Amino acid sequence: MRMSELSATSGVAIPTIKYYLREGLLHQGAQLAATRAGYDESHLRRLRLIRALIEVGRLPVASIKQVIAAVADESLPTRDVLGIVQYALSPAVEPEPGEDWQAARAQVDRLIDDLGWDVRTDAPTRAELTQTVARMRRLGMDVGLEPYAEAAQKLAAEVEMETVAFDGPRDAAVEALVLGTVLYGKAFDALRRMAHESESARRLHPES
Amino acid sequence: MRMSELSATSGVAIPTIKYYLREGLLHQGAQLAATRAGYDESHLRRLRLIRALIEVGRLPVASIKQVIAAVADESLPTRDVLGIVQYALSPAVEPEPGEDWQAARAQVDRLIDDLGWDVRTDAPTRAELTQTVARMRRLGMDVGLEPYAEAAQKLAAEVEMETVAFDGPRDAAVEALVLGTVLYGKAFDALRRMAHESESARRLHPES
Repeated sequence: MRMSELSATSGVAIPTIKYYLREGLLHQGAQLAATRAGYDESHLRRLRLIRALIEVGRLPVASIKQVIAAVADESLPTRDVLGIVQYALSPAVEPEPGEDWQAARAQVDRLIDDLGWDVRTDAPTRAELTQTVARMRRLGMDVGLEPYAEAAQKLAAEVEMETVAFDGPRDAAVEALVLGTVLYGKAFDALRRMAHESESARRLHPES
Repeated sequence: MRMSELSATSGVAIPTIKYYLREGLLHQGAQLAATRAGYDESHLRRLRLIRALIEVGRLPVASIKQVIAAVADESLPTRDVLGIVQYALSPAVEPEPGEDWQAARAQVDRLIDDLGWDVRTDAPTRAELTQTVARMRRLGMDVGLEPYAEAAQKLAAEVEMETVAFDGPRDAAVEALVLGTVLYGKAFDALRRMAHESESARRLHPES
């Protein structure tokens, strides 16, 4: 298809498509003539992925370039591509020197071990969870994360990973992972606060 | 205790305490002499609450004032105070006119009905969840939120609400609610992404 058709079908404006081509986020079309290129399904899929990374993942263009480079690198195993995406979606957390941090990190590592989870030692999610656990410990909160870990594992295994087609096109798998991670995360957070409202109403007015 | 002792015990600097007094976030101490005031446990508890709202809840001072006013208003039932706090922690979401929004909102309302949850019709969490559901529907995602709602209810009832002493001092109940909502939310989000990593590793390398 021509660029005008690619734009109409994808809903992405032509100047935006040209920008993605210049930045290398979108691969070039087949050269049909000196001034004419042809685009196909792979361009549509890539545009969907880019929009998902920007609008839903809210990733900066530099991170999107890394993700797209990983998606386009045929030599990378799919697991590594998904890892790069997960890590791009995680906030960068710097370890804070001190005993508090070490104790929290030890608690996080032990939790993951006990769960038998396959999570890299250098995964940024470990540092992210360590930061929250360190804060909870300093505040004197009793940090029992096991019920949360069990719920996370159940939802990941039974719902979220079911939406990712690991053997299909990488663009589609990565898009599903981004949408699932971000949107189900937002939905769950709103549901948790609703459950709080409902549960506190029940405790304060047990008769109703 | 004197202000210097209040500062040392709470870890909050004297100029900051004076700022909270001027802004009405912290209640005045007992007037012991023309230039001397006495502070007690209630001031320590209030300072802890203010720091939790700022540092963990990341609420702007205007929202903190609303929360503190609700905490201090003895005529308000505890449920209403907790509702005001929950609502201050929720992002403000404007309904988007259109059929998409209406369909998503109907889905959210039906879900809450089916669950038998006690959530106000005007709760901002309903609009928040509607926004996410509308986006999921536009993206063609199959939106089955029941497993998320069940997990949220279980965690709220069995873990999070257990940390809130509904019959104790309001400052303490509100603080526990803020810390629980924000910190367990962050912890769960990191755990979900770890579970994704682990689960996708398992699906891609079933032999390992």
